[in-house]
Amino acid sequence: MTFPQTLTEASGQVQAFLARELSGYPDQPVIEAMRYATTGGKGLRGFLVLEGAALHGVAPGAAIYAAAAVEAVHAYSLVHDDLPAMDNDDLRRGQPTVHVKWDDATAILSGDALQTLAFDFLARPECSPEPEVRLALISDLALASGAKGMVLGQAQDIAAETAAQPLDLPRITELQANKTGALIRWSATAGALLGQADPAPLRAYATALGLAFQIADDILDVEGDAALAGKRLRKDEEAGKATFVSLLGLDGAKSRARGLVEEAEAALSGYGAAAENLRAAARFVIARKK
Amino acid sequence: MTFPQTLTEASGQVQAFLARELSGYPDQPVIEAMRYATTGGKGLRGFLVLEGAALHGVAPGAAIYAAAAVEAVHAYSLVHDDLPAMDNDDLRRGQPTVHVKWDDATAILSGDALQTLAFDFLARPECSPEPEVRLALISDLALASGAKGMVLGQAQDIAAETAAQPLDLPRITELQANKTGALIRWSATAGALLGQADPAPLRAYATALGLAFQIADDILDVEGDAALAGKRLRKDEEAGKATFVSLLGLDGAKSRARGLVEEAEAALSGYGAAAENLRAAARFVIARKK
Repeated sequence: MTFPQTLTEASGQVQAFLARELSGYPDQPVIEAMRYATTGGKGLRGFLVLEGAALHGVAPGAAIYAAAAVEAVHAYSLVHDDLPAMDNDDLRRGQPTVHVKWDDATAILSGDALQTLAFDFLARPECSPEPEVRLALISDLALASGAKGMVLGQAQDIAAETAAQPLDLPRITELQANKTGALIRWSATAGALLGQADPAPLRAYATALGLAFQIADDILDVEGDAALAGKRLRKDEEAGKATFVSLLGLDGAKSRARGLVEEAEAALSGYGAAAENLRAAARFVIARKK
Repeated sequence: MTFPQTLTEASGQVQAFLARELSGYPDQPVIEAMRYATTGGKGLRGFLVLEGAALHGVAPGAAIYAAAAVEAVHAYSLVHDDLPAMDNDDLRRGQPTVHVKWDDATAILSGDALQTLAFDFLARPECSPEPEVRLALISDLALASGAKGMVLGQAQDIAAETAAQPLDLPRITELQANKTGALIRWSATAGALLGQADPAPLRAYATALGLAFQIADDILDVEGDAALAGKRLRKDEEAGKATFVSLLGLDGAKSRARGLVEEAEAALSGYGAAAENLRAAARFVIARKK
């Protein structure tokens, strides 16, 4: 299987799980919006959970709860981030965003409920037979996604738009470590937590991967094809925002991203051939067109 | 102590706990907004947690985590509900709402992070030495606040505004059981869960209390003084919405609320004099001016 096929298979499993869970909910636009928002993404975060879990001998039927949890959090963040009061995006994953297809209120509420759903999944006995493991996943997800992680990164990003000076490289790196890095780190280390193994190698992998992912996003914003990407591009330049491309130049950014991918791959050396899918994920992250 | 004094003391403890927790967060408008949103409310939900915990011999230092969690969820729901895309309210607790004082983006993000914070609190060992108890509180809070509870109720409320016909009594009762009832029920039963006791009597108490609370809110919307209430009133009539007052008449609504308070008090008979504060809370709920 090529890596895109592996990713598609994993994300298909997570999306099917979410669809099955949400089929038991009352018939309301807010629920339809939750289903819609959890459909059609790349599913990289869920894939990282499933793959990290497989590396540690965790049953896929257990790991799927953590995979679905992180995809629910990611989907909530996109639904809220796309709102007119935030990034004001009309297109996501090649489809109208939730507030365009329904309205702002439905987008706010469906995002709220997707966040709740994530913690619901992690609290279930099916997620892990060990209560302490479930609680560790919940604590870590709260840290990664809340006001010390993802939400802080989004707030820093908004603040940067009206700052007198564009951010410098250390600030941009910190912002991205919060905005996208923290959730990617949670995803990659969840499998080790589920398997009650040392998460340090996967954490090192994910730290490099998360930064490479964001640099690739900035490159995509400049070089990408909006039709392929399924979302609006050239946003950063329009907004006059500092990015890894504006700070390092296009070649410098590409070279930095390649270095990070090598770093990510090297962090997995202890796992040998079993981690090949995670290495392929790192290479994919900087080669992707969306 | 009169009941309002008891309530003020309990809510002061919960607000001080939240302020202390949030003082450790980065200095950003989104964090200031979180502090602001968790200040100045009645604190009824947190009080119910603390009081239910005291009834079951749970240490206040443990119960405060669950009390702060539910007040964080309640605050997040108000911040989002007040947004222009939802109820569009400028005033809350006698102060400008978060999106008025900052902006919509800060309101969305601070609400998101307040929800996350609630699950963070419940996952901490300080909340309960029993991992299974913490997980039960987390599961129940997800159920009470998500798309099968509070968020569903808010969605049903929005749907009612554009419905061809005003809702009838069973539908309004169901809507309110979700919108406000579920979180009140969680609050009142959390102490029994923390004390590993049967939550059934407190659940019966909270079910009656939650409905009385909402009927009182509808009466307040008609009869209240906006200056005392600290929020905009007469909203339901303007919007042509069915309420307990429009369905039962003012006298009918008052009589129903009084009956529910008696029901709530009766549910506590097994606790004897120890539950006097909870009985006073039920009487207060229909007598309050805000």
